[in-house]
Amino acid sequence: MRIGVLCSGGDSPGMNAAIRGAVLRGVDVHGFDMVGFMDGWRGFHEGEWIPLDRSTVRGLSPLGGVMLGTSRARPFVHGDGDESDMRVIRERMAEYGLDGFLLIGGNGTQTVAKMLNDAGIRAIGLPKTIDNDLGGTDYTFGFDTAVSIACEAVDRLRTTGESHRRCMVLEVMGRNAGWIALHAGMAGGAQVTLIPEHPESIEQICEWVLSVRNRGRSSLVVVAEGFKPTGFDDEVTREGLDGFGRPRLGGIAEVLAPLIESRTGIETRATVLGHVQRGGSPTAFDRVLATRTGLAAADAVKEGLWGTMMALRGDSIEFVSLEEAVSRLKTVPADRYEQARLNFG
Amino acid sequence: MRIGVLCSGGDSPGMNAAIRGAVLRGVDVHGFDMVGFMDGWRGFHEGEWIPLDRSTVRGLSPLGGVMLGTSRARPFVHGDGDESDMRVIRERMAEYGLDGFLLIGGNGTQTVAKMLNDAGIRAIGLPKTIDNDLGGTDYTFGFDTAVSIACEAVDRLRTTGESHRRCMVLEVMGRNAGWIALHAGMAGGAQVTLIPEHPESIEQICEWVLSVRNRGRSSLVVVAEGFKPTGFDDEVTREGLDGFGRPRLGGIAEVLAPLIESRTGIETRATVLGHVQRGGSPTAFDRVLATRTGLAAADAVKEGLWGTMMALRGDSIEFVSLEEAVSRLKTVPADRYEQARLNFG
Amino acid sequence: MRIGVLCSGGDSPGMNAAIRGAVLRGVDVHGFDMVGFMDGWRGFHEGEWIPLDRSTVRGLSPLGGVMLGTSRARPFVHGDGDESDMRVIRERMAEYGLDGFLLIGGNGTQTVAKMLNDAGIRAIGLPKTIDNDLGGTDYTFGFDTAVSIACEAVDRLRTTGESHRRCMVLEVMGRNAGWIALHAGMAGGAQVTLIPEHPESIEQICEWVLSVRNRGRSSLVVVAEGFKPTGFDDEVTREGLDGFGRPRLGGIAEVLAPLIESRTGIETRATVLGHVQRGGSPTAFDRVLATRTGLAAADAVKEGLWGTMMALRGDSIEFVSLEEAVSRLKTVPADRYEQARLNFG
Amino acid sequence: MRIGVLCSGGDSPGMNAAIRGAVLRGVDVHGFDMVGFMDGWRGFHEGEWIPLDRSTVRGLSPLGGVMLGTSRARPFVHGDGDESDMRVIRERMAEYGLDGFLLIGGNGTQTVAKMLNDAGIRAIGLPKTIDNDLGGTDYTFGFDTAVSIACEAVDRLRTTGESHRRCMVLEVMGRNAGWIALHAGMAGGAQVTLIPEHPESIEQICEWVLSVRNRGRSSLVVVAEGFKPTGFDDEVTREGLDGFGRPRLGGIAEVLAPLIESRTGIETRATVLGHVQRGGSPTAFDRVLATRTGLAAADAVKEGLWGTMMALRGDSIEFVSLEEAVSRLKTVPADRYEQARLNFG
Repeated sequence: MRIGVLCSGGDSPGMNAAIRGAVLRGVDVHGFDMVGFMDGWRGFHEGEWIPLDRSTVRGLSPLGGVMLGTSRARPFVHGDGDESDMRVIRERMAEYGLDGFLLIGGNGTQTVAKMLNDAGIRAIGLPKTIDNDLGGTDYTFGFDTAVSIACEAVDRLRTTGESHRRCMVLEVMGRNAGWIALHAGMAGGAQVTLIPEHPESIEQICEWVLSVRNRGRSSLVVVAEGFKPTGFDDEVTREGLDGFGRPRLGGIAEVLAPLIESRTGIETRATVLGHVQRGGSPTAFDRVLATRTGLAAADAVKEGLWGTMMALRGDSIEFVSLEEAVSRLKTVPADRYEQARLNFG
Repeated sequence: MRIGVLCSGGDSPGMNAAIRGAVLRGVDVHGFDMVGFMDGWRGFHEGEWIPLDRSTVRGLSPLGGVMLGTSRARPFVHGDGDESDMRVIRERMAEYGLDGFLLIGGNGTQTVAKMLNDAGIRAIGLPKTIDNDLGGTDYTFGFDTAVSIACEAVDRLRTTGESHRRCMVLEVMGRNAGWIALHAGMAGGAQVTLIPEHPESIEQICEWVLSVRNRGRSSLVVVAEGFKPTGFDDEVTREGLDGFGRPRLGGIAEVLAPLIESRTGIETRATVLGHVQRGGSPTAFDRVLATRTGLAAADAVKEGLWGTMMALRGDSIEFVSLEEAVSRLKTVPADRYEQARLNFG
Repeated sequence: MRIGVLCSGGDSPGMNAAIRGAVLRGVDVHGFDMVGFMDGWRGFHEGEWIPLDRSTVRGLSPLGGVMLGTSRARPFVHGDGDESDMRVIRERMAEYGLDGFLLIGGNGTQTVAKMLNDAGIRAIGLPKTIDNDLGGTDYTFGFDTAVSIACEAVDRLRTTGESHRRCMVLEVMGRNAGWIALHAGMAGGAQVTLIPEHPESIEQICEWVLSVRNRGRSSLVVVAEGFKPTGFDDEVTREGLDGFGRPRLGGIAEVLAPLIESRTGIETRATVLGHVQRGGSPTAFDRVLATRTGLAAADAVKEGLWGTMMALRGDSIEFVSLEEAVSRLKTVPADRYEQARLNFG
Repeated sequence: MRIGVLCSGGDSPGMNAAIRGAVLRGVDVHGFDMVGFMDGWRGFHEGEWIPLDRSTVRGLSPLGGVMLGTSRARPFVHGDGDESDMRVIRERMAEYGLDGFLLIGGNGTQTVAKMLNDAGIRAIGLPKTIDNDLGGTDYTFGFDTAVSIACEAVDRLRTTGESHRRCMVLEVMGRNAGWIALHAGMAGGAQVTLIPEHPESIEQICEWVLSVRNRGRSSLVVVAEGFKPTGFDDEVTREGLDGFGRPRLGGIAEVLAPLIESRTGIETRATVLGHVQRGGSPTAFDRVLATRTGLAAADAVKEGLWGTMMALRGDSIEFVSLEEAVSRLKTVPADRYEQARLNFG
């Protein structure tokens, strides 16, 4: 049995541990032959791969990034996954002697995994996204590390904010789902947390910030990159939003900070945390989750469970159908957000 | 409604966040009157308490330890929880005007909560143990922080171990359950992980260590404090174990290290991580879990769900019966341990 | 002897430890009466102050920010330090019963300290700046913490940069001096480090980035916020620089990244680290340096060494004249920068 | 010019960065041929070495431990450095084509470097010791990392100590010099710091601990492993010290804790930090210091400055004679210790 491993989409702390887990169990326990394609589908289509065995995955667990590289290179060279695309993939698999894939990636990648499987090409999904917006699983590896880094930034900004009696606005990742903001805001005791799922008006945000000042404290606002304020009018647009309420330049934090400052009279500073959220050594939680995900994926191959994705359910790794996993984006439900608002204003 | 909060047993990172969550929701949302007893049952019996409101819990989320103090002082002053003990508790409650308890603690504390509830004294449990050995919940707050610290120690010991070609033995907490060792060992890529639930012989351990050396690496052994080697004979006993296979002096790591060194000829060093595992600022994971546990406990009071414990199930906080929670110690099952052995030897 | 403590300018990790050191030694050993003004000169002029003693400084050493607050409020209410300004200060000192000042701040603050002292108002300087650009002292507290945070960001960005084969540009603080960039770049093994003292052309920067790619690696560029590329022409200006070579919008990293990407064809991403560099718990190095600075300042008061600044020289804290300290901005000398270029390209 | 690099003694964070700095400058700038011997003198005598160039030192700066390995293998195979020993070394150098050595190590290694140089064998010293007890230099790389880890342990133990109203005793490294204890104790605000240079009686220690309790706090005692209490009598000896005042078993912390508990009635716990102090990724400070030490060593070779050691003086790396460096152990002077006692009791 020869299995190809590839990573697609943005990198996520834990990808190395997942590869290591899959290889230690796949090669040493189940006796598979395993290869890794470099930079995702690019390596697959260009024939750049390396053998994976115990020695190649040695010491990988604590390392950030991913040793195979990852990219957004397209799996389908002709179209969006039609039969001619599948034919290309089948031909290359024959060329490499591949029996199936382990695909490490987020929503897009798991959707590809499902399409492959529907077309009779064996694939198993390992979910990975720092945004935690993938269905079917409690958490994805990378999320805990991103939250930890964001929470550490909240802790740091708070001390400087309080010392200067400033309002500090921290932008964290999360284009469609506000999980990182929700957790980092709750962990750090943010006074305002803003997420894409729950738009708020500039007026409401400023009211919270003033209320915090009135009880003698300085505000810490955590905002997900995908948040869009409601009710903006022409004036707001001129100040920094385009016609669709999106920031004209820079991140949303850089739009909000001057608006808050001009309306509340409180000195306000923006920080856009950016790429540091996805880098560096994974937390112990993510290393364990990723390793177990890899182990389970190797077992799924052994048991012929093609078309499944490895999912965390409680303290167990379970096999869920790819269909369930990609059927919806997992966003923050209203009651979870309502809990986080406890500390607001 | 006046609610008393008290902490019992060893401290666990996140206790402050749990108190803060319970108070912010209990006082500000549900309108309770809340008080905190100092040093657990000592403060209750000696009448030492403080009022709990928004200002007393300000900024608590990132802080380790617990601002109320905690102790192993006994709840029952006469016996083991007979009617005369309950009468004392009821009298004091009347004196303080208390309607019920939030009890933050581990197995022992949750057992007390159940006894109180069975005797008609209202109590709700907030589970806390770095050992993660409490039933009914996926994880307890404090565990993730302890694992993170243990994992960081593994990372550190590995570099010095490899540089000196030494075997490094790290002892982590876990008297009855090996969860910390299991997770830290998997996260850090330990070559041997030893837990109380799965005794191994010195011979087997040495065989693994030699096998690691033979493939050119240095061993990192993670051992839970409650691990006991099997099959020790008189010679072993003389070397450091008493008649029951327990270490004569110091921790189990200090017993194992010289045994490994003398039998394998590989220089071996022991480190007993100790109390640092339970201290310091909680991880973001534990802060979120603890805050949500506190929020849920306040809601449980509101809904009259006395006799329940707040439990993490997947990504939800659920109310489980105290009976379920304390019915068994949650130990590491064989299949979880078997996964961790993947990297052994 | 009654001594007033105040902080001016941006906050710097270690300010709390410095206050604690000065108070523990000033009050407990030398028997001074000490008070702290809130938010720098604002508190002084508005009469907002707190007494400082052992209990008020308890537990301060590990805390970021500064418990007294800091601001850029002006010391001189009429002019730039003329006699009428000094008269106001003398009157308030008489009102508060103050005998002298401990002034914690950077270049501007130490210049004020010198002016006060020249006008017969007793002042002693405690140097603080994360930028490390103050003369007369080897290092200022806050710098080591800022470098640590910047270095950690380099480590994190490197893993994601390598995984995506991207060039990552990290902007760190340093408007006039490139010390943070120099140290973080050397510690993190940056392939390009850009500082205000040593302008480089876009062409040179791109050449280095291409050279790194040609030997199979991904570039990590660390740039100080005050860096300005040389030789930019109209095209560059249109792309993001104003007529003086300063970035039109956002930080310099956000200007450089698209220029590098368009000229090298290598995907390039910018991160502006921002305020997190000055926040959070100080490193052990900064805590020790700050504590010793505070201790020495109390001793300087005792010995009547007004007009001095506490300076680190080797492993000693020495008393240097304020004149020496403020006579020049300490920038990165050419030979230090040349060493850092070792790894370039 | 062919230069051999070897490491001797315990590992110290920064050794990899030092090797990288020496190689990048030695090979790429000065054109040397460089080789590294594995495991110190063992590799030299057994002919196990690797070539050192840009690719072998790639990415080394953040890594703990040392890629060449280190050991306490003896340089002198016949005696203590007599002519027959030197002859062996000269013969092997001829065999390998070596022109000189870069020796990375502590006091013992620098003494060997001096002996070699006196015998006409070219050697340059790179000082390394986490204990910071080497003369001629302000600090050695590794020390800052060790202090950081010890300080972090103080922070962690403090929260658990305060929560349980316990006295916590932390043992850190430092057999002959108390620098780590001094700095970690000052950074963490320890109430008692005990170092080998300044013996104290059990009675005095207990008095401090009681005094801390009397003002409502819990004690944190930092003790260097080489500390020995004074004035112990037979009773003390029976409790855990041998006839020379050394701990009978375990570390000094494990001796002190029960003595403090039995004499003060305050629950007391010991933690021996151990090997984690020397492991893991170096701090930014140590990475910069180590890199600069390596760069300077390559320059020293270029300039023929054999017989020198690279020393940090203020913010400069200077060349000091090996004689000066090894002439005395650098211990904590009385005035530095007196400052640290500020917070005692």
